[in-house]
Amino acid sequence: MNPRAKDILSGILGGASAEERARDLAPNLEPLPPSIPAKDDWSTAARDERRKFLRERGFAIEALSGENAIAPEELRANIEGLVGFAQIPVGVIGPLRVNGVHARGDFYVPLATTEGALVASYQRGAKLIGLAGGASALCLVESVLRAPGFSFTSMSEAGMFLAHVVSRFEALQARVKETSRHAALVQIDPVLSGKEVYIVFHFTTGDAAGQNMVTFATAALCKDLLESSPVQPQAWFIEANMSGDKKATQLAFQSTRGKKVIADVTIPRELVVKYLHTEPEQIFRYWQLAVVGSLQSGSIGMQGHYANALAALFMACGQDVACVAEASVGLTRMDVTANGDFYCSISLPNLIVGTVGGGTHLPTARECLEMLGCYGSGGAKKFAEICAATVLAGEVSIAGALASGEFAQAHQAFGRK
Amino acid sequence: MNPRAKDILSGILGGASAEERARDLAPNLEPLPPSIPAKDDWSTAARDERRKFLRERGFAIEALSGENAIAPEELRANIEGLVGFAQIPVGVIGPLRVNGVHARGDFYVPLATTEGALVASYQRGAKLIGLAGGASALCLVESVLRAPGFSFTSMSEAGMFLAHVVSRFEALQARVKETSRHAALVQIDPVLSGKEVYIVFHFTTGDAAGQNMVTFATAALCKDLLESSPVQPQAWFIEANMSGDKKATQLAFQSTRGKKVIADVTIPRELVVKYLHTEPEQIFRYWQLAVVGSLQSGSIGMQGHYANALAALFMACGQDVACVAEASVGLTRMDVTANGDFYCSISLPNLIVGTVGGGTHLPTARECLEMLGCYGSGGAKKFAEICAATVLAGEVSIAGALASGEFAQAHQAFGRK
Amino acid sequence: MNPRAKDILSGILGGASAEERARDLAPNLEPLPPSIPAKDDWSTAARDERRKFLRERGFAIEALSGENAIAPEELRANIEGLVGFAQIPVGVIGPLRVNGVHARGDFYVPLATTEGALVASYQRGAKLIGLAGGASALCLVESVLRAPGFSFTSMSEAGMFLAHVVSRFEALQARVKETSRHAALVQIDPVLSGKEVYIVFHFTTGDAAGQNMVTFATAALCKDLLESSPVQPQAWFIEANMSGDKKATQLAFQSTRGKKVIADVTIPRELVVKYLHTEPEQIFRYWQLAVVGSLQSGSIGMQGHYANALAALFMACGQDVACVAEASVGLTRMDVTANGDFYCSISLPNLIVGTVGGGTHLPTARECLEMLGCYGSGGAKKFAEICAATVLAGEVSIAGALASGEFAQAHQAFGRK
Amino acid sequence: MNPRAKDILSGILGGASAEERARDLAPNLEPLPPSIPAKDDWSTAARDERRKFLRERGFAIEALSGENAIAPEELRANIEGLVGFAQIPVGVIGPLRVNGVHARGDFYVPLATTEGALVASYQRGAKLIGLAGGASALCLVESVLRAPGFSFTSMSEAGMFLAHVVSRFEALQARVKETSRHAALVQIDPVLSGKEVYIVFHFTTGDAAGQNMVTFATAALCKDLLESSPVQPQAWFIEANMSGDKKATQLAFQSTRGKKVIADVTIPRELVVKYLHTEPEQIFRYWQLAVVGSLQSGSIGMQGHYANALAALFMACGQDVACVAEASVGLTRMDVTANGDFYCSISLPNLIVGTVGGGTHLPTARECLEMLGCYGSGGAKKFAEICAATVLAGEVSIAGALASGEFAQAHQAFGRK
Repeated sequence: MNPRAKDILSGILGGASAEERARDLAPNLEPLPPSIPAKDDWSTAARDERRKFLRERGFAIEALSGENAIAPEELRANIEGLVGFAQIPVGVIGPLRVNGVHARGDFYVPLATTEGALVASYQRGAKLIGLAGGASALCLVESVLRAPGFSFTSMSEAGMFLAHVVSRFEALQARVKETSRHAALVQIDPVLSGKEVYIVFHFTTGDAAGQNMVTFATAALCKDLLESSPVQPQAWFIEANMSGDKKATQLAFQSTRGKKVIADVTIPRELVVKYLHTEPEQIFRYWQLAVVGSLQSGSIGMQGHYANALAALFMACGQDVACVAEASVGLTRMDVTANGDFYCSISLPNLIVGTVGGGTHLPTARECLEMLGCYGSGGAKKFAEICAATVLAGEVSIAGALASGEFAQAHQAFGRK
Repeated sequence: MNPRAKDILSGILGGASAEERARDLAPNLEPLPPSIPAKDDWSTAARDERRKFLRERGFAIEALSGENAIAPEELRANIEGLVGFAQIPVGVIGPLRVNGVHARGDFYVPLATTEGALVASYQRGAKLIGLAGGASALCLVESVLRAPGFSFTSMSEAGMFLAHVVSRFEALQARVKETSRHAALVQIDPVLSGKEVYIVFHFTTGDAAGQNMVTFATAALCKDLLESSPVQPQAWFIEANMSGDKKATQLAFQSTRGKKVIADVTIPRELVVKYLHTEPEQIFRYWQLAVVGSLQSGSIGMQGHYANALAALFMACGQDVACVAEASVGLTRMDVTANGDFYCSISLPNLIVGTVGGGTHLPTARECLEMLGCYGSGGAKKFAEICAATVLAGEVSIAGALASGEFAQAHQAFGRK
Repeated sequence: MNPRAKDILSGILGGASAEERARDLAPNLEPLPPSIPAKDDWSTAARDERRKFLRERGFAIEALSGENAIAPEELRANIEGLVGFAQIPVGVIGPLRVNGVHARGDFYVPLATTEGALVASYQRGAKLIGLAGGASALCLVESVLRAPGFSFTSMSEAGMFLAHVVSRFEALQARVKETSRHAALVQIDPVLSGKEVYIVFHFTTGDAAGQNMVTFATAALCKDLLESSPVQPQAWFIEANMSGDKKATQLAFQSTRGKKVIADVTIPRELVVKYLHTEPEQIFRYWQLAVVGSLQSGSIGMQGHYANALAALFMACGQDVACVAEASVGLTRMDVTANGDFYCSISLPNLIVGTVGGGTHLPTARECLEMLGCYGSGGAKKFAEICAATVLAGEVSIAGALASGEFAQAHQAFGRK
Repeated sequence: MNPRAKDILSGILGGASAEERARDLAPNLEPLPPSIPAKDDWSTAARDERRKFLRERGFAIEALSGENAIAPEELRANIEGLVGFAQIPVGVIGPLRVNGVHARGDFYVPLATTEGALVASYQRGAKLIGLAGGASALCLVESVLRAPGFSFTSMSEAGMFLAHVVSRFEALQARVKETSRHAALVQIDPVLSGKEVYIVFHFTTGDAAGQNMVTFATAALCKDLLESSPVQPQAWFIEANMSGDKKATQLAFQSTRGKKVIADVTIPRELVVKYLHTEPEQIFRYWQLAVVGSLQSGSIGMQGHYANALAALFMACGQDVACVAEASVGLTRMDVTANGDFYCSISLPNLIVGTVGGGTHLPTARECLEMLGCYGSGGAKKFAEICAATVLAGEVSIAGALASGEFAQAHQAFGRK
């Protein structure tokens, strides 16, 4: 049995019965709360109306409004050589209804972008998902990876080292516990490649994105292995491009780097016709051409524009934006159901996100995370499920625009002054 | 002959003779200007010293300093539903010496990030590159892609349509000219896949990133083709995942999406020893393990952390940050020269950047682009070469840290409060 | 314009008008000739009946029947250290109706295999294709690749060499003509990667598979370039893993290595029900899961089992069997038509085959090629189209077996004694 | 811990101590037995001399010599519609010295091919390996995969099914035991992708290649799961392109499909100079360009020409030749050792081979397997290690030819009449 299968199982059920969980994920047809007002009005008055709307709902947006600052000293772990702040416009979409295990309810989602039509497109997707009863979303499993490489003089020596690593799993797990109370070593995948051994360490990191945490833990593990091994490498490196850090890889797509989250929705045919101005069959035809296009172009996985949602969420919410490189790999599946409705699912196997540490404490990031109810401990899986639902909204909306032939017009309407 | 070969040739020579061009790219050992002061001091005074340093050099940083705002009305083409601004800290590295065709000189480069150690690492790389006489950098060729798909009832019909497309190349070029004075159609790659035809249109877009421009042009081209073709598709879509937009693909890696820029540097052995605390042979050993690690993990291309530089530059300079998904694919080559020095090159085949349009006019983005002397018309290739040199600085620095065993310490020093 | 677009155009039209060509590719509902008799009878009598059947149609099968030998001296270009012959059983399927440009008519196709159920499965596919009027097949374009690599001391020097290569295209074309009257240089794709230059040379090689021919031509081209270039490499290699020789690569999948051939067929719903015991919608559902499975497993392209047909054809017909590694990459597309029929297409972008040279003159290979009317000059494109139609038969048959749930039974019936 | 890690460990140690195992894999400098005589003489007399040489060593080559036949009835599980036999020339290389766990000693290896220079090249590699004390070879782990796909109406239902599968692992293992005494279920990797579940079943299959065996076992597992599951799929398929059968995939490359075997050798510098006419540094330079070429062309893994050895071995030894598509994916690593010798390793993660069942009982196949001492039960891992050592010989030889500049000449000498 795949050692993560039990973790996936607990990701799916998490203490609940199958029936309870199915109920959690089912569409919720309670009335939706109001939409963000005056979305397509660029006046100062409209902006102020939106701000009022958010404040009335208890969301602090002082920093986002430019009324709040952070002292340079507070940024010690975030940047060197600070001279100021890049200001990226933030729009809000919503309500986005999410029927997840960790994220449950209607969310107003902040998106930072400079690309016209992006917020409008996600808003359209969110609206449709809401009318369909919301998006099911599920955070399945977590794995933050770090993968050192060790070079020996022969395959024979490398094999002996690998044997040593395998025999030492429990000791290594204990070693990690000493480096951090949040980190845990959950799996080792040792790879013997000629005279070299790569060890893919899989960690969980609590509510932190955890990239630094696993680096420090891996340093400790390497030290332990080198001290205890009967055979010594000629050279070794704490990272040798096997961990998928900051890059799109098949390995991470097939396993997990960060959190694996999936989401889906079934949108009734009449909503597709009314709001997307096309039919489920036509969107599905688009998917067929797009999946072949993905194969023809040699993409990893298959998706429309996950990076748009993720970059916008990551910038708004203080995440490591460079991780868009890996997080934007996934798989979108579209179909027509037996009774003619439109089905869409997305998967994010490499979602590196956190709600503590990193840039999450910066004033605007904190406000955005708090708008989602995700700031601090206990928020990471919830945030991951909201990310998945947002990505889903974008896939629904762009597929509709491409299928109806309105893609270019939409950009003409919103992407030009 | 590959039709872009002449463009690549002109990218290399561009009117100059081979000898002149070789001189342009050669190391420049003129004394370096001063470094950004007090990089590792997080006090308000140190920040102000850095601001003073930049202002003394004529750089406006009012918006970056939070003293400048933009009216909501100005953001009509950039965002809908604006409620405020995400504030991402910006640090500056430099001088970064670039011996390019378009970018020539010593640059102070703004990087927006929330990840500690990032600015420090790029500063270290920039310093080494400067001491080695600077980075050669070359913008080879440009291609912004859009790839509609057309579905017919049989391969036979699809073949007839493809034949029509090929016969109409010049008419299509003329059609593009009518949609925009900046866009030009430079190549068509038609792909016949069963009963479907995909047409990969390659455009140049002047100094704009050009994603909207090529969408509008492609809409016009499709209209033209459908009106003129003797055979009509059953369905067609203006984009079907063959263009590499917002995703890592082998196709774009092997051709070009945006700009293809490359950069390299040879760093004398003694500088490696002094500043990276390791030797060229050890860094090269790291590269060997990393290249095998990349192959083992199924990455597209091979690189250390391009996404870190690109996300930081894109956020600072008003680029489309979601394009990190495709732009961070490339290939890093390291070697030891015949006389024991360290060689490193990087390539960015998919650099979607612009210096007009998009988010470039936003106050902080404009200041950052102006700091690089790249704002507005004529700046895009220069900006691309600076991006390449910055990415190179990051690859040099991270490889040094991994080879010397200081990677974890560096993150312990800068990534923790 | 992609320089091969005109070649593709001529592959599609080849002197004919669009209407004529569409007629060529259209289904042909003339009565089918008789099937190979007693296919599922393993007795000596049944084998003799099949031999008689073939001989009555004028096919020589002396060598296949073990009555013909070849002198060791005749194998000078084929093998060293000969001690004997591996005997691989050959079955024949057919008639396989092909409506191609080069292959037109009903073919009995020899397949060498030791895997039970393989011949039976292809026979079933061939029968269905025949009842549907035959497979359209089209050899679009040819390119045999060889890609030397040249290493310089810097990007600047490498760029100068690339400029030299581009300027010398016509001279290189002339040089190739001197090495062989069958080889022609049709395209150059120069790739500048840091301090290294790879040149992907594209050749046509007449009716030979041509791997040796392009090696000799490339040796001459490299000699020419080194003698004429103002800048000399530190090292160079006539092949550096960019040509896709004997390996599955995205580059070759996206361009062409050998011949690019495609084939398709539309099979009426009632034939699917009667012979495959399932419905087009169910086969299409299989395709949807299979295409996602291909993406999840990181395959290059997407197909069911091309390698089965190609290995069997290559062994029977004296091809280079190791080229199965690259030739078995392609893309299968299935769909349900507007009136409920089943559509299937296949593409073979990397089909390295020949009908002169290599192993084609060996007695059994020659008999097999002659059975297809493809032996010798003028046969290669015809053979390529027959390969494509055979591959198509296999995709239709396996998809039917998987969709109907009969896959395991079929192997139980034929794959066990 | 990766569940196969213990299997890998037992693959490495297999009851021996680390020291014993290291001794097994160490070079063996005992004198080599004589080479196959008169390799480059194509006369009948020379052929007969080689036959005599083999017979004197106790090898039966009657069938290979054309003196032995098989009755059609014996081919019931191998082919339908038999009309005769394709005759593929077989040459023999050797001695090939292998220091493996299962294969130990000096082997004469039969290779079936029609490509001139192939046998000569492998002979050269075998000779060098022998002079260097032989190749270390290690069969690490086995996994024959079959991967059914199940389609539900929603992610929620699919998740419930996945939970059911995970909870049923032991029952499924027991179920497999009922279908075959050779098959065992060793791992399950369930993949939840939107509303679909793929289950990658990993089996061991004794000394059979086992493709049919795992198909029958999987049919039984699917039946069990469908009968026991509380939730039923809308459609399901016993195979949906996730198993890597007959195709190159990243998934199989990263895990194992069939057997994972690795081999390496260190060749003293003076042998490289004397026999390959080049130096280790120059071969290593070739590897650097080739590894970048592999990345540039988007290959899976990185290797020179594994397919040549594997196709030749598979045809000679009655293997499923179509599996060359997947088996030829692997990774070749070359290096220069600290004291200037040449190091080379290869890995074959997807080697589907067997020594019982399939085509192994055919007369020529049986003779070839017996020549290697691998026919029948207990032979599969031994055969796998010989395959690995043969592949290694080919990589050493081709790299030497490319590095010395003799590649084209060698083909001119052997590949032309």
